Amino acid sequence: MAAASVKPALLLKDELDIVIPTIRNLDFLEMWRPFFEPYHLIIVQDGDPSKTIKVPEGFDYELYNRNDINRILGPKASCISFKDSACRCFGYMVSKKKYIFTIDDDCFVAKDPSGKDINALEQHIKNLLTPSTPFFFNTLYDPYRDGADFVRGYPFSLREGVPTAVSHGLWLNIPDYDAPTQLVKPRERNTRYVDAVLTVPKGTLFPMCGMNLAFNRELIGPAMYFGLMGDGQPIGRYDDMWAGWCMKVICDHLGWGVKTGLPYIWHSKASNPFVNLKKEYSGIYWQEELIPFFQAATLPKECTTVQQCYLELSKQVKAKLEKVDPYFVKLADAMITWIEAWDELNPSAGDSANLTNGSAK
Amino acid sequence: MAAASVKPALLLKDELDIVIPTIRNLDFLEMWRPFFEPYHLIIVQDGDPSKTIKVPEGFDYELYNRNDINRILGPKASCISFKDSACRCFGYMVSKKKYIFTIDDDCFVAKDPSGKDINALEQHIKNLLTPSTPFFFNTLYDPYRDGADFVRGYPFSLREGVPTAVSHGLWLNIPDYDAPTQLVKPRERNTRYVDAVLTVPKGTLFPMCGMNLAFNRELIGPAMYFGLMGDGQPIGRYDDMWAGWCMKVICDHLGWGVKTGLPYIWHSKASNPFVNLKKEYSGIYWQEELIPFFQAATLPKECTTVQQCYLELSKQVKAKLEKVDPYFVKLADAMITWIEAWDELNPSAGDSANLTNGSAK
Repeated sequence: MAAASVKPALLLKDELDIVIPTIRNLDFLEMWRPFFEPYHLIIVQDGDPSKTIKVPEGFDYELYNRNDINRILGPKASCISFKDSACRCFGYMVSKKKYIFTIDDDCFVAKDPSGKDINALEQHIKNLLTPSTPFFFNTLYDPYRDGADFVRGYPFSLREGVPTAVSHGLWLNIPDYDAPTQLVKPRERNTRYVDAVLTVPKGTLFPMCGMNLAFNRELIGPAMYFGLMGDGQPIGRYDDMWAGWCMKVICDHLGWGVKTGLPYIWHSKASNPFVNLKKEYSGIYWQEELIPFFQAATLPKECTTVQQCYLELSKQVKAKLEKVDPYFVKLADAMITWIEAWDELNPSAGDSANLTNGSAK
Repeated sequence: MAAASVKPALLLKDELDIVIPTIRNLDFLEMWRPFFEPYHLIIVQDGDPSKTIKVPEGFDYELYNRNDINRILGPKASCISFKDSACRCFGYMVSKKKYIFTIDDDCFVAKDPSGKDINALEQHIKNLLTPSTPFFFNTLYDPYRDGADFVRGYPFSLREGVPTAVSHGLWLNIPDYDAPTQLVKPRERNTRYVDAVLTVPKGTLFPMCGMNLAFNRELIGPAMYFGLMGDGQPIGRYDDMWAGWCMKVICDHLGWGVKTGLPYIWHSKASNPFVNLKKEYSGIYWQEELIPFFQAATLPKECTTVQQCYLELSKQVKAKLEKVDPYFVKLADAMITWIEAWDELNPSAGDSANLTNGSAK
């Protein structure tokens, strides 16, 4: 009844960009070649811009280093983080496509329990092209999957669902733990393949990880700002979290859905927990105040676009989080700069003039 | 870090009753023998009380038919449904144990993907004995399972979790669909084994199915009223739904958790969709108003016990749902009668006098 016929393997080739933040040669793409080669890549080179990043033959890509970002955004480049994978959101801004898939360069193709390679991108596209159900929980998980549906007691008026803005994928092998958990459980590996996709209910926040993430840029792009992290900032490793909390509040307000679960990627390498602890320790403390802030945040009904919602949220961040740390005033200002830069590079839906000029291949 | 060491196979033997509503001989217990035999059963015989229900040898049980219910509850027996599996909640009331597991007699032992028989009761006990996390979503599902934990970005202050009141299990083979979905998809079978347990977030309602359900009776028992269904009532097949909505509002208010997911049972037989449609059609219409009612329901902070919460909810049902149908006035009154009967049979935590007198074996 609910199952939609989606053939994503053939779909979205010209409507989706793959955004990869990196500091190294992109050998990891070899493993993804069968799945990624038909798509356009946007590579955001972090760190030393004089370094050359090698991209395997045959991929269609554009690459931006820090010099490109500074040139394209001018003074507004201050909103893009340096020496932190948060810089990836620059790729969201310069894309002209409807959908974005972003993946870390230490993520490889995982296998499903039958031993078959998982086409992560295909699953993300399925997730994005089928509706979400944020208003009521379906106990058999995604009702739009083959072999599933809405169970008894699910209101019929809610079975059309709402547009899906975000698809959050998971990780086999190295789980996405914080530094304290890494330190306590250095050998823990995620081996459990949970064959489910589910909508994160309205009003519920979750920790969005940027490692394996897709979204409808046209719907929610301007809310996907990964904040100020890394070089010159008092915090790291909260870029995706920040984006996830802001995005979720806005999706809840605008009536859009966020899914989590499949697809899995294979996360190959645990980052250094001592380095991570240094990046995270302020965040670990601050998040105790950030979560209640975002849980209580409401947006006025006058905010009907993502930009309006995001600017309103930046005001609330400035007003209510300054007492947590002066950093949040800087972050609130950067949120405004981000929207200004977004609107500059994406002047209107109809205007396809290419304002960017990266070192395209 | 979070994983608790629970050995439920040895646990709760004297603290858990298995409640089974039935109209037939309980041959299905043969398959469950290795798992259920150590436990005490409470059988609630529905329909003709003169019929003899055969229980396989070796099980320890007490059995109540309609005559027993009338004798024990007197005029208050009016709150217990007849000719509907809603009658099972009488078993919750006469139990003296801390935990209840309830299962339908057309549910058999399912197999996990490795082909091993699933001990559903053991998994329910695990679910009930580990905390829930209703305030923030953990993307790797139950953080208390072996091999899992809280992911990066999960506030540390929330990692202790809260007591788990309810464990809602799922069904392989025949999914729990409503009559319209049964009619449209007569051949659909649930073959997807989703290896996850998760907390239904605070503020989110879900369709609770009574087929394979466990709960902490000491915590939430008085809210587990399955309503007025079946004989003489304008509705059926909404007994568990009603209990689930009431229970969830109260758990959210009192800060307790509700889990759904594992364990699976094998649901053998689809009920007749034409008969189901007759039972359900009012409910299908009414639920469109019931869900917004329960989503908006709030309880005053003075309500600190389940009984207080439940009586307050009955008032709101009477005040706000009479306009949907006069049936809800009758149901609201039955909710009060249920609490009165509960308190009569369960006079105080310390008092273990056995007020009931079923035809115990």
